Amino acid sequence: MTKPISDLRLELPQLAAAYAGGALTPSVVVERILHEIESRGADGVWISVVRRNDALARARQLEAMSSREREALPLWGIPFSVKDCIDAVGFPTTSACPAFSYVPTRNNPAVERLLAAGAILIGKTNMDQFATGLIGVRSPYGVARNPFDAAYIPGGSSSGAAVSVAAGLVSFALATDTGGSGRVPAAFNNVVGLKPTRGLISGVGTVAACRSIETLSIFALTVRDAQAAFEVARAYDEDDPFSRPEPLEASSQLPAEFRFGVPSQLEFFGDSHAAALFGSAVERLQKLGGSKVDIDYAPFTEINDLLFKGPWLAERYGALRRIVDEQPAALFPVTRDILAGGKTISGADVFAAQQRLNILKRRVAKLWDQIDVLVVPTTGTIYRIDEVEADPITLNARLGTYTNFVNLADLSAVAVPSGFLPNGLPQGITVIAPAFADHRAASVAERFHGASDLPTGARHLRAAANSNHADLHEEIVT
Amino acid sequence: MTKPISDLRLELPQLAAAYAGGALTPSVVVERILHEIESRGADGVWISVVRRNDALARARQLEAMSSREREALPLWGIPFSVKDCIDAVGFPTTSACPAFSYVPTRNNPAVERLLAAGAILIGKTNMDQFATGLIGVRSPYGVARNPFDAAYIPGGSSSGAAVSVAAGLVSFALATDTGGSGRVPAAFNNVVGLKPTRGLISGVGTVAACRSIETLSIFALTVRDAQAAFEVARAYDEDDPFSRPEPLEASSQLPAEFRFGVPSQLEFFGDSHAAALFGSAVERLQKLGGSKVDIDYAPFTEINDLLFKGPWLAERYGALRRIVDEQPAALFPVTRDILAGGKTISGADVFAAQQRLNILKRRVAKLWDQIDVLVVPTTGTIYRIDEVEADPITLNARLGTYTNFVNLADLSAVAVPSGFLPNGLPQGITVIAPAFADHRAASVAERFHGASDLPTGARHLRAAANSNHADLHEEIVT
Repeated sequence: MTKPISDLRLELPQLAAAYAGGALTPSVVVERILHEIESRGADGVWISVVRRNDALARARQLEAMSSREREALPLWGIPFSVKDCIDAVGFPTTSACPAFSYVPTRNNPAVERLLAAGAILIGKTNMDQFATGLIGVRSPYGVARNPFDAAYIPGGSSSGAAVSVAAGLVSFALATDTGGSGRVPAAFNNVVGLKPTRGLISGVGTVAACRSIETLSIFALTVRDAQAAFEVARAYDEDDPFSRPEPLEASSQLPAEFRFGVPSQLEFFGDSHAAALFGSAVERLQKLGGSKVDIDYAPFTEINDLLFKGPWLAERYGALRRIVDEQPAALFPVTRDILAGGKTISGADVFAAQQRLNILKRRVAKLWDQIDVLVVPTTGTIYRIDEVEADPITLNARLGTYTNFVNLADLSAVAVPSGFLPNGLPQGITVIAPAFADHRAASVAERFHGASDLPTGARHLRAAANSNHADLHEEIVT
Repeated sequence: MTKPISDLRLELPQLAAAYAGGALTPSVVVERILHEIESRGADGVWISVVRRNDALARARQLEAMSSREREALPLWGIPFSVKDCIDAVGFPTTSACPAFSYVPTRNNPAVERLLAAGAILIGKTNMDQFATGLIGVRSPYGVARNPFDAAYIPGGSSSGAAVSVAAGLVSFALATDTGGSGRVPAAFNNVVGLKPTRGLISGVGTVAACRSIETLSIFALTVRDAQAAFEVARAYDEDDPFSRPEPLEASSQLPAEFRFGVPSQLEFFGDSHAAALFGSAVERLQKLGGSKVDIDYAPFTEINDLLFKGPWLAERYGALRRIVDEQPAALFPVTRDILAGGKTISGADVFAAQQRLNILKRRVAKLWDQIDVLVVPTTGTIYRIDEVEADPITLNARLGTYTNFVNLADLSAVAVPSGFLPNGLPQGITVIAPAFADHRAASVAERFHGASDLPTGARHLRAAANSNHADLHEEIVT
């Protein structure tokens, strides 16, 4: 009989240790994960799941390797998921639009690299259609069930990706992030979301939305796990028009003392619990050696507006114009309306916005003289599904308050859990660093998360399924 | 009585020597230049000329300096002109559109730096309206008279700028270049056109046309003179959204042997004389230590098409939309039609073109493994004014065959004279180098030009006014 998934620790070091010690094999892990996926039923997490025979064949292929071969593979036997706008051979790519579906003949280069490093692909995850949205409810494949409370949104657009990690179904997830799709769902699922500097992970073989500013991203249970997957996934790709060959700032231990910027004005949309949680996070950072520096958030707010109210919508429309113009009925209604808005944006407006963005980026660049990293709440609050369905545009926009600007401003970011609200839902902070200083953001994020004593993901909920939820969360918040 | 201008050598070293030896003073130079400008009458070169009293006051101010002060000024007493889309206090800025005219209260930063270095501003030069065109006939201020043959176009858009240098009215001219405006007129006036890497000379206080890709540029009689003015003019400017702080590739002597690329397919539009002249130029480069490498011109041709047939027209329209939309009658007819074409370009098209450009730039980048510089004819041929008036769009586009791509591809270039056609009109070659390798292009251009024994500019025509033109040109070609 298959053991319950809650016994399975999918963090990379734990899983590697279990493999090394013979307590687990890839075949057993695959069996238990697929059994759990089946048990969960229609949880909205997946658009397609690997066939059992294929997954077991892959596991056996890995098991047949010599120990020397295994040791050369940094992700040997590690289960992962891929957001359904990224090509993986053997699965259709839908971008959560069945009419758009196609069968890729080649893996996206990052998928290829992860598989070559020994990882096992479990399936393709659900998402806001065409990666448009931060909420995770704009999909004909249903809403990926938030493991903390199914009445709440999972966050998007990489909804299934984040839940697949939080629910303990994979060790990490490959996803994408344009305006926060790789960070908002991290906050709402108590997982880590690593959004690299643009151009470090190839976007070839993905459904383009906003190609000039989007990135592939990683969800994992810990910062170190996310970094491990990122290190495998990233590589310069000559065929990606936005790939960048520049080296990363050297990875180094964060100094004992560091400076972190925090917006002098913060907006939690009336959620005083979220405000208090962020206050605690700031205090924790200060205890960890951080000096807080108040910074002016105005340039970031203006960049946010450029993204979702402005010209980059034209890029999104342009990438999808065939389906928007010719098969509008095939689109999720809200998504169709948003994308169609890009049709009337003029070329002149795009050039004007790009010029304005250059000036704003220069203001942002100066900040790094004063601070090592910028720290923001990943979101101001979280909403229930019925709330976002009643007001899909406004609430979606609010969720981007602390995420929208990051790719436009050419920054790197790591979103990490910061604790739980009294309603049991998790929240997070995002550590932001300049382009190519990805390791710096990860270093602060890792120190912060490591000092938190928070459970990883949502596995503990299943483990404590028989205990009282409210009690558990109260215990965690304290 | 004022001496004839043909006696005046305005190259920087000659003028400095004349000043140092007491043979000339700035006041005398100013008097002779203004007298010559007056004698020439309506030559189409100027939109406004400095008032005599102002110029003499400036000259006397310079003369009143101590020798120590003088020595600190690299351009002490050097006369120059400024294209009329660049702000200079004391002159209206028209961009060759009287209805658009305004009186600037601050100098463009490059103008400011040139003045601070001791240069004397003689006037504002005529141009294709709103810097749109490569021909020099699209101006309500007339056609700047080509000093070699008034029936021929001067080249544009910086027509007056190039003629002001060729005619010996200034030592150098500050101009602009988006698709060749700082190079085509150099070829047609036997002068040097230095088009720096984008973002090295501030564009603040200029009439924007295609701000994301345009550069300020320099015309001068020799490469060294152009470099001297460039070194003074260039400076990072935080207020210019496209200014770049990167350092230039170190200036160094060109090695005795170098590799130069030449397009494997060349188009001279039926002008076999121009073709022969370019062949001689290639031979001269080979004699000077260059190894010729045939290169594929296809990516450059595709980038050319992006510029003049495509989305960057939207930027031009956007920058000028108020006048295009509200005062179309104030525009030169051809210019109005071209600018209005930018109105219907969509934002989606802009993003698609920028993405394509990234791929093409990557192809171009690889070339620099094979070659040190790229060498092209500056233009395939030259046209008469009546020819371009009969077919203004096609012939204008032909003139950009070897110039349009340079700013879009983010390259630096120096256009230098290469000799004369049998009809007496000059032609040139352009030496192209990567961004920030401006000194490398200049170094090859200087070696080539220095080995040519060509007269500088058109001063020799006046000196030989009584001799037979045909004989003179024949002598020069040989």
